Amino acid sequence: MNQDALKKMVGQEAVKYIHDGMVVGLGTGSTVKYLVEALGKKVKKDKIHIVGVPTSHRTAERARRLGIKIKNINDVDHIDLTIDGADQIDRNFQGIKGGGIAHLIEKIVAINSKKNIWIVDESKMTKYLGSFPLPLEVIPYGSTQLFRRLAKMDFHPTFRMNGDQHVLTHSNNYIIDLHLGKIKHPHKLSRKLDDMTGIVEHGLFLDIVNMVIVGYDNGPKTIKAR
Amino acid sequence: MNQDALKKMVGQEAVKYIHDGMVVGLGTGSTVKYLVEALGKKVKKDKIHIVGVPTSHRTAERARRLGIKIKNINDVDHIDLTIDGADQIDRNFQGIKGGGIAHLIEKIVAINSKKNIWIVDESKMTKYLGSFPLPLEVIPYGSTQLFRRLAKMDFHPTFRMNGDQHVLTHSNNYIIDLHLGKIKHPHKLSRKLDDMTGIVEHGLFLDIVNMVIVGYDNGPKTIKAR
Repeated sequence: MNQDALKKMVGQEAVKYIHDGMVVGLGTGSTVKYLVEALGKKVKKDKIHIVGVPTSHRTAERARRLGIKIKNINDVDHIDLTIDGADQIDRNFQGIKGGGIAHLIEKIVAINSKKNIWIVDESKMTKYLGSFPLPLEVIPYGSTQLFRRLAKMDFHPTFRMNGDQHVLTHSNNYIIDLHLGKIKHPHKLSRKLDDMTGIVEHGLFLDIVNMVIVGYDNGPKTIKAR
Repeated sequence: MNQDALKKMVGQEAVKYIHDGMVVGLGTGSTVKYLVEALGKKVKKDKIHIVGVPTSHRTAERARRLGIKIKNINDVDHIDLTIDGADQIDRNFQGIKGGGIAHLIEKIVAINSKKNIWIVDESKMTKYLGSFPLPLEVIPYGSTQLFRRLAKMDFHPTFRMNGDQHVLTHSNNYIIDLHLGKIKHPHKLSRKLDDMTGIVEHGLFLDIVNMVIVGYDNGPKTIKAR
């Protein structure tokens, strides 16, 4: 089965956890696209009422088109469940997100959710995080100084560029990717990055996910994480 | 002597620490205004060359008008000294800044400076921080949820408003002021706030200032902090 088929499989599987009356955070990315499609069908077929809290304009547009009611996070009083993709998940179910540019928004939705499910194809599962670059959303002002500081810390930073222009996040910030190879102590790293002025948010999602649905050739596997 | 005269006194006193060839961070606010005026005079009179790194458009404009060369922080390779005001300074020389809206920019300049001097009138000196509200620059997305969380933590948050509009920072974020009364453990509080997603930066400036110049009726007092 190709990667796309695995993504579709877990997207469809995840919809089983969405029930009538729920407020559901909807992540971003190619796997979530399939989730939203399957959810659109379920909403129509079963006539259930759910409210979606999207983490990107693209997800919002897609959901709306499929008849899913959408609200801004500031307009709901809770989120029951958020379903999102992940770029890498380690053996302790810690994750990296942010291959896209939405990890700040995704983290805000995730930490405000009672429960989080990640849906991934098997290629995302790994022993240690870090072979996938760790993204930082950074304030443009002073980012050259911050970049130097990160380089001195041996974090191998690169600015994410589009030609000679900085890629901009929803908040008009820059992205710096850290090429770390192997992250042995994600909590220590997280704390270090949290402390640094100019970093709005990093892409480590620690102790957040409750359940992971992984797509394998022989079917989806649902794993309780915490 | 009124407060304004004290501010003028310390602004003029601080200029003594700026020498030919220096790259100088220039803070924001009513006390720094006097520093910049005095620096403009010194640059002209002594024909010294300095580069100013301003923390606000207002300071940049004022400096430029007075003939002080200005550069963006991303265009200098170091800052020798930053001089800035503070809203409150405790007995251990920890500070709160951000009565204005520039504390993020001010902190980025401060942590990239080899040395920091704060200039204040005596009313800013206090045993404990916290009677001055502690500002947080926060991402608008999800700020309602963040606000509730802060309220639950007994931090007595208020959104900083201009009529019915949110006050916006340079990065188009909101400000939440925490009304804490007395901050007994600033480092613990700082860590807690650093960890929270959605807070771009708080106004606690810890272990940053090297020297404080305080304006008293009988003259400026210069205190080595660390």
